[in-house]
Amino acid sequence: MCGIVGIVGTSPVNQAIYDGLTVLQHRGQDAAGIITIENNTFSLRKANGLVKDVFHTRHMKRLQGNIGIGHVRYPTAGSSSSSEAQPFYVNSPFGIALAHNGNLTNAESLKEQLFSEARRHVNTTSDSEILLNIMAHELSKPEKLKLDPEDIFTAVTEVNNKVTGGYATIAMIIGHGIVAFRDPNGIRPLVFGKRESAAGTEYMFASESVALKPDGFEFIRDVAPGEAIYVTEKGEFHSFTCADKVSYSPCIFEFVYFARPDSTIDRMSVYAARVNMGTKLGEKVAREWADKDIDVVIPIPETSCDIALEMARVLDLPYRQGFVKNRYIGRTFIMPGQELRKKSVRQKLNAIDREFKGKNVLLVDDSIVRGTTSAQIVEMARESGAKNVYFASAAPEIRFPNVYGIDMPSAAELIAHGREVEDINQSISSDGLIFQSLSDLIAAVSQENPEITKFETSVFDGQYITGDVDQDYLNRIDKLRNDSAKSTRENAMSSGLEIHNQDENESD
Amino acid sequence: MCGIVGIVGTSPVNQAIYDGLTVLQHRGQDAAGIITIENNTFSLRKANGLVKDVFHTRHMKRLQGNIGIGHVRYPTAGSSSSSEAQPFYVNSPFGIALAHNGNLTNAESLKEQLFSEARRHVNTTSDSEILLNIMAHELSKPEKLKLDPEDIFTAVTEVNNKVTGGYATIAMIIGHGIVAFRDPNGIRPLVFGKRESAAGTEYMFASESVALKPDGFEFIRDVAPGEAIYVTEKGEFHSFTCADKVSYSPCIFEFVYFARPDSTIDRMSVYAARVNMGTKLGEKVAREWADKDIDVVIPIPETSCDIALEMARVLDLPYRQGFVKNRYIGRTFIMPGQELRKKSVRQKLNAIDREFKGKNVLLVDDSIVRGTTSAQIVEMARESGAKNVYFASAAPEIRFPNVYGIDMPSAAELIAHGREVEDINQSISSDGLIFQSLSDLIAAVSQENPEITKFETSVFDGQYITGDVDQDYLNRIDKLRNDSAKSTRENAMSSGLEIHNQDENESD
Amino acid sequence: MCGIVGIVGTSPVNQAIYDGLTVLQHRGQDAAGIITIENNTFSLRKANGLVKDVFHTRHMKRLQGNIGIGHVRYPTAGSSSSSEAQPFYVNSPFGIALAHNGNLTNAESLKEQLFSEARRHVNTTSDSEILLNIMAHELSKPEKLKLDPEDIFTAVTEVNNKVTGGYATIAMIIGHGIVAFRDPNGIRPLVFGKRESAAGTEYMFASESVALKPDGFEFIRDVAPGEAIYVTEKGEFHSFTCADKVSYSPCIFEFVYFARPDSTIDRMSVYAARVNMGTKLGEKVAREWADKDIDVVIPIPETSCDIALEMARVLDLPYRQGFVKNRYIGRTFIMPGQELRKKSVRQKLNAIDREFKGKNVLLVDDSIVRGTTSAQIVEMARESGAKNVYFASAAPEIRFPNVYGIDMPSAAELIAHGREVEDINQSISSDGLIFQSLSDLIAAVSQENPEITKFETSVFDGQYITGDVDQDYLNRIDKLRNDSAKSTRENAMSSGLEIHNQDENESD
Amino acid sequence: MCGIVGIVGTSPVNQAIYDGLTVLQHRGQDAAGIITIENNTFSLRKANGLVKDVFHTRHMKRLQGNIGIGHVRYPTAGSSSSSEAQPFYVNSPFGIALAHNGNLTNAESLKEQLFSEARRHVNTTSDSEILLNIMAHELSKPEKLKLDPEDIFTAVTEVNNKVTGGYATIAMIIGHGIVAFRDPNGIRPLVFGKRESAAGTEYMFASESVALKPDGFEFIRDVAPGEAIYVTEKGEFHSFTCADKVSYSPCIFEFVYFARPDSTIDRMSVYAARVNMGTKLGEKVAREWADKDIDVVIPIPETSCDIALEMARVLDLPYRQGFVKNRYIGRTFIMPGQELRKKSVRQKLNAIDREFKGKNVLLVDDSIVRGTTSAQIVEMARESGAKNVYFASAAPEIRFPNVYGIDMPSAAELIAHGREVEDINQSISSDGLIFQSLSDLIAAVSQENPEITKFETSVFDGQYITGDVDQDYLNRIDKLRNDSAKSTRENAMSSGLEIHNQDENESD
Repeated sequence: MCGIVGIVGTSPVNQAIYDGLTVLQHRGQDAAGIITIENNTFSLRKANGLVKDVFHTRHMKRLQGNIGIGHVRYPTAGSSSSSEAQPFYVNSPFGIALAHNGNLTNAESLKEQLFSEARRHVNTTSDSEILLNIMAHELSKPEKLKLDPEDIFTAVTEVNNKVTGGYATIAMIIGHGIVAFRDPNGIRPLVFGKRESAAGTEYMFASESVALKPDGFEFIRDVAPGEAIYVTEKGEFHSFTCADKVSYSPCIFEFVYFARPDSTIDRMSVYAARVNMGTKLGEKVAREWADKDIDVVIPIPETSCDIALEMARVLDLPYRQGFVKNRYIGRTFIMPGQELRKKSVRQKLNAIDREFKGKNVLLVDDSIVRGTTSAQIVEMARESGAKNVYFASAAPEIRFPNVYGIDMPSAAELIAHGREVEDINQSISSDGLIFQSLSDLIAAVSQENPEITKFETSVFDGQYITGDVDQDYLNRIDKLRNDSAKSTRENAMSSGLEIHNQDENESD
Repeated sequence: MCGIVGIVGTSPVNQAIYDGLTVLQHRGQDAAGIITIENNTFSLRKANGLVKDVFHTRHMKRLQGNIGIGHVRYPTAGSSSSSEAQPFYVNSPFGIALAHNGNLTNAESLKEQLFSEARRHVNTTSDSEILLNIMAHELSKPEKLKLDPEDIFTAVTEVNNKVTGGYATIAMIIGHGIVAFRDPNGIRPLVFGKRESAAGTEYMFASESVALKPDGFEFIRDVAPGEAIYVTEKGEFHSFTCADKVSYSPCIFEFVYFARPDSTIDRMSVYAARVNMGTKLGEKVAREWADKDIDVVIPIPETSCDIALEMARVLDLPYRQGFVKNRYIGRTFIMPGQELRKKSVRQKLNAIDREFKGKNVLLVDDSIVRGTTSAQIVEMARESGAKNVYFASAAPEIRFPNVYGIDMPSAAELIAHGREVEDINQSISSDGLIFQSLSDLIAAVSQENPEITKFETSVFDGQYITGDVDQDYLNRIDKLRNDSAKSTRENAMSSGLEIHNQDENESD
Repeated sequence: MCGIVGIVGTSPVNQAIYDGLTVLQHRGQDAAGIITIENNTFSLRKANGLVKDVFHTRHMKRLQGNIGIGHVRYPTAGSSSSSEAQPFYVNSPFGIALAHNGNLTNAESLKEQLFSEARRHVNTTSDSEILLNIMAHELSKPEKLKLDPEDIFTAVTEVNNKVTGGYATIAMIIGHGIVAFRDPNGIRPLVFGKRESAAGTEYMFASESVALKPDGFEFIRDVAPGEAIYVTEKGEFHSFTCADKVSYSPCIFEFVYFARPDSTIDRMSVYAARVNMGTKLGEKVAREWADKDIDVVIPIPETSCDIALEMARVLDLPYRQGFVKNRYIGRTFIMPGQELRKKSVRQKLNAIDREFKGKNVLLVDDSIVRGTTSAQIVEMARESGAKNVYFASAAPEIRFPNVYGIDMPSAAELIAHGREVEDINQSISSDGLIFQSLSDLIAAVSQENPEITKFETSVFDGQYITGDVDQDYLNRIDKLRNDSAKSTRENAMSSGLEIHNQDENESD
Repeated sequence: MCGIVGIVGTSPVNQAIYDGLTVLQHRGQDAAGIITIENNTFSLRKANGLVKDVFHTRHMKRLQGNIGIGHVRYPTAGSSSSSEAQPFYVNSPFGIALAHNGNLTNAESLKEQLFSEARRHVNTTSDSEILLNIMAHELSKPEKLKLDPEDIFTAVTEVNNKVTGGYATIAMIIGHGIVAFRDPNGIRPLVFGKRESAAGTEYMFASESVALKPDGFEFIRDVAPGEAIYVTEKGEFHSFTCADKVSYSPCIFEFVYFARPDSTIDRMSVYAARVNMGTKLGEKVAREWADKDIDVVIPIPETSCDIALEMARVLDLPYRQGFVKNRYIGRTFIMPGQELRKKSVRQKLNAIDREFKGKNVLLVDDSIVRGTTSAQIVEMARESGAKNVYFASAAPEIRFPNVYGIDMPSAAELIAHGREVEDINQSISSDGLIFQSLSDLIAAVSQENPEITKFETSVFDGQYITGDVDQDYLNRIDKLRNDSAKSTRENAMSSGLEIHNQDENESD
């Protein structure tokens, strides 16, 4: 997962991009980058780390210009996507920079095609570099020094024809402006807003609506599935649907876990969707677990708090924040002669004994992935004195890998892969386990915007909307994401790929 | 505020100190340090930054030894205490290292005394360096190469006689062991625990009980006011009350705001104390605001959540987390030609409109200090559509400065200094304001341990327990803490004081 | 000025490139870079600083592959050439990296042409980026996935047709190999050598022959003017003359000052050339200054030592190293409230009084540029007690700017610009001044290889061999190199240009 | 070996100390440090690296004050002296900082004594820390807040009584001033000078006279053996001989190799002494090698150039600089799967073939230590075509370790240890080998100041002037310096010792 931002303004954009990335930091804490244009020249700063650590005054001073894009990266080492910081940049044609959030399902064949058709070299394993080069190749086709909006939309249409997957993209072309587009299924979110200045209208694109706020951009609307928006350097706004067939199928996992509660995606409040999940799940508990004498509802912080609070209301039970989350996580050092201790959820959570002692507790989490954390939490609850420990998941059983940009383990590592509820209940040693049904989850979200009837829900039902994901493909990414393969691959990548420029050690 | 840790173990202590400091990181994010002893030699690493950023593998490799202490520092630039990282170290006598949490009220005269009586030079403005040298001077008095427990307790008694203020201290003496002591009023917290290993009993000291957990130390008890505990290198345990007159007067602000909810201080659960505060404050609201038609209780995250949740229960009102806290805070860069924007609470909080729209909301915060944040939050609530905005503070009016180690502004900057409730209510533009009474606050906390009947509550009532704080002293620190004076002073300090050693840039 | 290296090997080349760059460090201490190819993927490391400071183990580990190129940069801020570290890289076609030494005289129009003809964006002010893109554009013309040697030589021929100036270039193409070429006048030096390994012949290119030595490459010959050499990844060697009209006109300044004495350029030993300069200049002194009663010959270290030693032999006078050079040069810090002291040659040189006291000294320098240093040295000699101070320059009067890659000030700043000897003599306050004649300088060098009859000598005679340098062009670079303009321009450049990638701060 | 500087001025001293250290950089490139006093507070910056790399503007800004000392360190890992950067600092009594050049021969017993008599802990293996604590202990004896000059001289006298070895020391006491002293045998050099300012006379101390120059201090004289000079903060000058028995025995190796030629030590010009060595050695060659048909004299750069030049004059032979020294030395990286190549003198030197081809060459070096370099140089000369290779050493056979601060290998590693000339000649494969006699060496140096009749010459004759160096001691340091023991020890040291403070990574 990643967060992206782009601004065409009438004054310097570096601070506003920085602020936007900070607000989107929950979408990726692994790396950050900003690229701007001034005097037809790019200035780029990108590095591993949090936004606040990557950008210092000396970088901001260099990031001049009234137009720019930014990116925060999630460490998706387990997927086939990037291990490098974005934005990426090519100098031909025009000079193009690009940042994206998502994952391409046909990256491999695209890479080969890029070489055989366009002799374009892709130096990393990043989807973004591929997407950038595909786009660059299409943009080079019209034999012009200045492209019309039609040329640009034709190029994006060609990109959408060639590329499959989920992707929200912001590209910036020297001498032209910013082009933002969303995949034809609208899997990954993308919004835009505007701000009026004395010198004209300024536009901002971002992964989530909440990123528009800090610098005073007013939310306009979501970018539509397959839509491309081109805002020229001068602030002229053009929009076009660059796909023959579009479907509105936003990723439901944004609502379950990924997005900020104060964001609105495709006109659905994330917060409200979560409250609705609580209502639905609370009703299911009331319905199915009438026999269970639950004393208290306790969330696993922190996404599930809003869900659990609503469940407690529905169930008319007390809600208590019985787990304290450690905000600061340290490392376990491998010292010569010392044994490595197992990393545990206990580094992240602490139980308040008095809320567990002698009680039947209903623990609520947003979802269960591998199940190892859930099992440890159940154990902690028991150690704190709980009589019976029940567990509720606001998302249904996760049974299939995600191929559209959400970092998840391979199928074999998913606790619900090929398993039924009772089986999972025993695995995590809870005294009762309940999952939200998929139809309830969909209802909980779409209730906020009845126009959206379909969601990208493949992790629950194995239906991959792009139509190109078969068992063969899944086996291949399985191999890639397999935990044991991860370290080997990471080493290989980090040894081969990096294109380095200027060091940042100049200081005084 | 600061956090301290000390361990006398039977195997390397670096990781356990690191883990303890990570858990205490909420007590200070400004700087961190660890010092250990091996082969009668100190190894020290300290620097500005979070624990996870200060310690790398190369530092941990150097921090060898089965005995050590650690420290995390709060940026108390507004108080007379340290602007330097701890632990500090002197080489005579024996080699002594020390870390402390708190503030000395007679630091200035102690510094003069140290020079005139012992010709000891104090190079920084840090209380810790003064405390260390006072202790070193006392420890140098017995003409012995190896001190007995009695010698050490005599020295600590002398330190307690000379020093006034609130302080929890962990010192480490080469060839001897660790000495931990707490001021005679027990203002600052200090606990200890033990762990059994094949090679014997290991002891750990820490500011809060929760820091004992991650490495498996079992909580024994709080260090008593005026008590000193000396654990030799070999693990021999000695304890003695090193003060003629002791009183049990723990700082009540630890419970209101500072300590982690999952800690227990002086046998009082911080979490439970906060729930009790909610009960008391809820009852007061019920009593006094029967006329106000409150629709929902909304906490200002995140200390006040447990308080507000209980208030909602008492008032039988819905509890909603209507504010979302930004976990990631960026900087505002000063660019040539750009104006500096005002920092706002909006960078830290975001309102979920639907929980405010058309409602009478009761906002709950743990306390109100300057009032500027409260005013902005009230404004945000109104902008989100709240009809009436009521405000409740779980702590009474803060009217006086803190001189025992909690960083607070000068009296003149406190919104409640010389002001009554209605006046403050108007200042923050709320439609109603209520403060917990001091007696209720005390009752809420002491309810968890009726043996504690007195607390350090000077910020509320101006009663300074050490007896040496008069108007003259307050005027002096007022001058120091005055915001406008801060920057000048900070510059002066940073230019003159630092004793640097080895750089850390060795890398490969 | 810069130094370049390229290797096509049968085993990892990172260390050998590193060693070669270290040996060429005298050609540029400003920045260094290495790029290698492994598995059709580039790895690049470049940064400001000396070779030994830029490359750490972590970088070397990443620079995998049996083929690579390297670069060291001279801070030619005063010329129109690069302010950025090399090598540069484009991804289309194939992936091409390039490093060069020299300067293009038609850079500006090439940059415009690149955009208008190929829509290629050049993001920096570096000649290298222009040269790289010109070459990339030519290499993209044949519609093939794999280029034949003929294709490559056709492309280089086109590059030579378009580009004017002095340039020695090493380029590397993914899937192909290394292409090295020298401008049609052979202004800048370039040599190659080979090393036999079990797996086949390995080739190394370098600016100077001495760089072949440390890793055991055997010198073969100089690359000829206009010649291109293409060595495939598999070690197949191809060579072709890629220019219609070639002339052998090596830069004579390499022999006067720039190159290492232990190098051989175009089959002329630099050391021998300098000894010959001493012979010629000694004879001239004997001829013209028979009346001057010189007691001792003293070199200005350290290039002129070999020259002065030979002069002393010719003149039958003692040779004494009366000046000691400071190897370590520090900074003068600008402190608030302190005045900036003038930088002086005294920071670099110290006189041994006893070699000057009461003597008539003949000081020998390789050349006189601005004359300010010479004046200070004459003053130092007098202060050390010299009776008469005579000055001899092994190079003739420098009257014109260099446009082929040697960093020199604008014409107005050259002490000999529009001035005759006696005038200069008075300017530097010497008691006598003598310059080598241009014909003697040429004779001194060509004596080592009589086949070379022409040299690039424009700084002495204003004859610019590329034919495109007119007064208009000189005025333009004058403006650029003007000292007072320098700082403004440098700031402008550094704010706008840099394309940054990965930071290097990962450490443990 | 190390270099030290100290200034009592009337305006900020940071730049002048920096400049002095830069000029003394040849005495130590391993680490650098400066400490100053302002407002009775120390400011310190020290780190590994060259002066130019250790001190940035941010450090200089902190190093405020009109009084300060500085240090550059030689990596004397092979001796028992420091592995840490100086200056060192203790806070009791008064606050004292100290830097020294030299080595104590009774460090071990002093360290024990410091603990048993004064309970002072020494945390490193550095002699300086011991010396500082010995001095601090003596200065603490008078029960005064302000010491008289007599008190200080009494303390230094006691230090000299307790300490044996060679040491030049500069100490700085808060509230007092600077105390500089030289060991009673005057082994290590120390000079001082003055500069008049409007506010009074300023004094500067330095290891070599040449360090006084850059900031305009006028050389006054050498500090005498056993003399201490105390300059108060106010610039009052006091001097006293603090030793019962003094002897003037400067280290002769300063003249052979260590000091800069433009320095004057104990009124003997280093340059002149080297010329004299050339005269004497030339005469010996003339006398003993009349049969050898030498064609040319070639120095091994760069100390021996002045010596060889004079030999050539005496022998009436041509002098040629046939070896080119590489100014830039890189690293050999240990790559996984690659074998470590042997470091060779070829990285440092390159031969100019034409000066060797077919000639009988006389190579001149200042001294021969291990002989491995000499052997490689002889081999290089042969490879370059030399007919016969003769070798001359300006210093006699080095047969014994140095214990007074010059870093030399253990006896067993010295090629001349227990060996005669012919034997050594065969070892280095030369066709003839000649050493200066010790009496000639002494004569060459003392000729410049006939008052000095005795030198510290133990490496040649095994006579250790301090009288406490017996076979037992030598065996002990042998063990320490033994190459194979070095790495183990270094690891042990670096893991245990370092006292770190503030990091330097704050940047913007």
